[in-house]
Amino acid sequence: MSNGGKGPAAGTANDGGLSRRGLLARTGAAGAAGAVLGAAGSSYVYSALDGSGRKEKDDGRAGTALSTVGSTRAMFHGKHQSGILDPSQAHGHLTAFDLVPGAGRKEAVALLRRWSAVAEQLMAGERTAQDTGVALDAGPSSLTVTFGFGHSFFDRTGLAAHRPRQLDPLPDFSADRLDAKRSGGDLWVQIGANDALVAFHALRALQKEAGQAAKVRWQMKGFNRSPGATASPMTSRNLMGQVDGTNNPKPDEPDFQRRVFVPDGGAPAWMAGGSYAVVRRIRMLLDDWERLPLDEQEKVIGRRKKDGAPLTGGTERTPLALDEAGPDGKPVIPADAHARISAPEQNAGAAMLRRPFSFHDGLSPDGTPDAGLLFVCWQADPLRGFVPVQRKLDRGDALSRFVRHESSGLFAVPGGAVEGEYVGQRLLES
Amino acid sequence: MSNGGKGPAAGTANDGGLSRRGLLARTGAAGAAGAVLGAAGSSYVYSALDGSGRKEKDDGRAGTALSTVGSTRAMFHGKHQSGILDPSQAHGHLTAFDLVPGAGRKEAVALLRRWSAVAEQLMAGERTAQDTGVALDAGPSSLTVTFGFGHSFFDRTGLAAHRPRQLDPLPDFSADRLDAKRSGGDLWVQIGANDALVAFHALRALQKEAGQAAKVRWQMKGFNRSPGATASPMTSRNLMGQVDGTNNPKPDEPDFQRRVFVPDGGAPAWMAGGSYAVVRRIRMLLDDWERLPLDEQEKVIGRRKKDGAPLTGGTERTPLALDEAGPDGKPVIPADAHARISAPEQNAGAAMLRRPFSFHDGLSPDGTPDAGLLFVCWQADPLRGFVPVQRKLDRGDALSRFVRHESSGLFAVPGGAVEGEYVGQRLLES
Repeated sequence: MSNGGKGPAAGTANDGGLSRRGLLARTGAAGAAGAVLGAAGSSYVYSALDGSGRKEKDDGRAGTALSTVGSTRAMFHGKHQSGILDPSQAHGHLTAFDLVPGAGRKEAVALLRRWSAVAEQLMAGERTAQDTGVALDAGPSSLTVTFGFGHSFFDRTGLAAHRPRQLDPLPDFSADRLDAKRSGGDLWVQIGANDALVAFHALRALQKEAGQAAKVRWQMKGFNRSPGATASPMTSRNLMGQVDGTNNPKPDEPDFQRRVFVPDGGAPAWMAGGSYAVVRRIRMLLDDWERLPLDEQEKVIGRRKKDGAPLTGGTERTPLALDEAGPDGKPVIPADAHARISAPEQNAGAAMLRRPFSFHDGLSPDGTPDAGLLFVCWQADPLRGFVPVQRKLDRGDALSRFVRHESSGLFAVPGGAVEGEYVGQRLLES
Repeated sequence: MSNGGKGPAAGTANDGGLSRRGLLARTGAAGAAGAVLGAAGSSYVYSALDGSGRKEKDDGRAGTALSTVGSTRAMFHGKHQSGILDPSQAHGHLTAFDLVPGAGRKEAVALLRRWSAVAEQLMAGERTAQDTGVALDAGPSSLTVTFGFGHSFFDRTGLAAHRPRQLDPLPDFSADRLDAKRSGGDLWVQIGANDALVAFHALRALQKEAGQAAKVRWQMKGFNRSPGATASPMTSRNLMGQVDGTNNPKPDEPDFQRRVFVPDGGAPAWMAGGSYAVVRRIRMLLDDWERLPLDEQEKVIGRRKKDGAPLTGGTERTPLALDEAGPDGKPVIPADAHARISAPEQNAGAAMLRRPFSFHDGLSPDGTPDAGLLFVCWQADPLRGFVPVQRKLDRGDALSRFVRHESSGLFAVPGGAVEGEYVGQRLLES
């Protein structure tokens, strides 16, 4: 296959049928990790190839279309793990695992080896050894799998001396209402895909590989816009209806890498190319929010709902005119507006790459929607990203009346594995 | 707008911004209800039109693509309600409502009027009166909204004399483990869309319109393949990995209409063009299922997992050779195989149009996945559709060891509203 990444897949099941890999479209659809491939639009002709790269006999379905939604593939190997720079997918699973009693470093090594091997197969659209078949027929669908280590992992594996100070517990925030059962965890796995069955399939496969070494501690499921549902590219909206993510650092900004990733030569060395993920289940009090008139909502945020432009005018990308006053002498963007308080220029440049999913788990016992944001943010150091911003929001954000932080996790996400390596090897074999 | 359906939308918010309707692509993407529009493939140029049909000034985004995923629109008005013949969407919400104490026919009339008006707006991609903004930027994304009446609705509204015998309670099935709190209901609303935010937005809007007249009784959320994730068209798979839906009646079959819809001149008259929906939350015992070797799974189903072909050979659409015996003299498709027992030819031709969603609500307290099928099937008469088939499955289906029916609902879904009418008007004003 001319997908530019790997040769024919040796491990692909060759049972005479179509391998999932066979559904991969031509080279244009296979992108390097982090490449932004517009998912709307052009389609690829279905090209039935078996695992050996030979063209199969026409099965009557040739000519039908597998769009880039299915055919886009993120690469497992690379400087960074997948799922950080890749475009947000329509479906996500966040799962934390705890090592079972008695399991230690040896079991963790074996687990990360198994997980890495399976993640690579899944992301390539290949079948796994005991495949459930749930993802059959589908392309890789931009599947990404990301692995992280929590604070407790290092104690469990005798690696406490290698634990980065960046994993020190986050400070308490006054508005936190954290559920310990849905917080923390030895290990964290983030799955994203543009097809729900592909995402579910990956979740089950990785859970199966955890086997007797690790048990699920908590599991959350989220979603984003479907590729093609909006004109592309547009910043997405959250369940409050707000444009969300405007101020995210952009990969072409000069300090992007420095803000998001641990540099080569950084400390600890095994985190080179890695990043720290802060994960929070943020419930939105939507009944309260939706009762607020539009103009009051916009003052809470500091931006227009319609297009995300600052209340001081312009378009979504126009900088906030924080000093501008209205006819009443008060700042147009109120002192407690969320956009003001979280603005990097108000936080000594502190910035993080937010890459969240929305969640909606039905109704709470009190009849309000159990919905909100699975907040995931990425930074080279939480003390220069999430912590200072959240501290400030905790003190004076007008939005805090309408949200509730219900769980929290902080994970060290090592750099991507190079060929022949498994994720976390530089830590686990140090 | 040349969408062939309606003129410019009078109710569209004209606040100087882009209306959601403005994102609708050209005529090719707007289809009559039930039209099968391949969602993969061709894209439509973003054409910014405001509510009055005038072309807006180029806002710098013209030329970006809103694919058919977003631009495809199902029509509210028609002989049948939407959400029955439309291709299954990637996201679905099933919700039952009970009228509040004291509410009766008058409140039900007002509610169905409000719901119909809002459903029409939502399906057209227009803003509603108190729009939350969650669906802004997105096209209609194949949104469908379907309304049904449960057995209890007729007592609550003084319409018991008009209740069809088809709403008589379903018989008990020995394997049922039904939760009454998640079963039944006065009213049922089915929402489907190819974008999660569009679906959520519709759910919230309809819940808001229920207001003081009706309260949510239960709510379930499901999913299907994303358009474009597979080569199209392919029968979808369920979370057991099985191709599911092969034997569905096809719209081009001569008895399709008769099987699925109540004919003009049928009884009761207000149900002309309508259908009965049986709704079941069917938990799959996936841990047990996935432990079963592939060949045993295939014997349970009677079909090959890979492609859904019968164990007697051929391809997915090949008829089952039910009489064929293997070298051991036993039938190749076992006597208790699910495909055999549910085959129409084994049930005096009983058939229903299955249009389910998969569900996955995390882990159960016992650590097993709370996942399976939100089974929704459509028929002109449950006694000639769901009931005889389920009776037979209940007695001898090999699959029953791996599934558990946890909830059940039966709803009369009236025909579609014609222009100027609201859904259910022929009942409520009879």
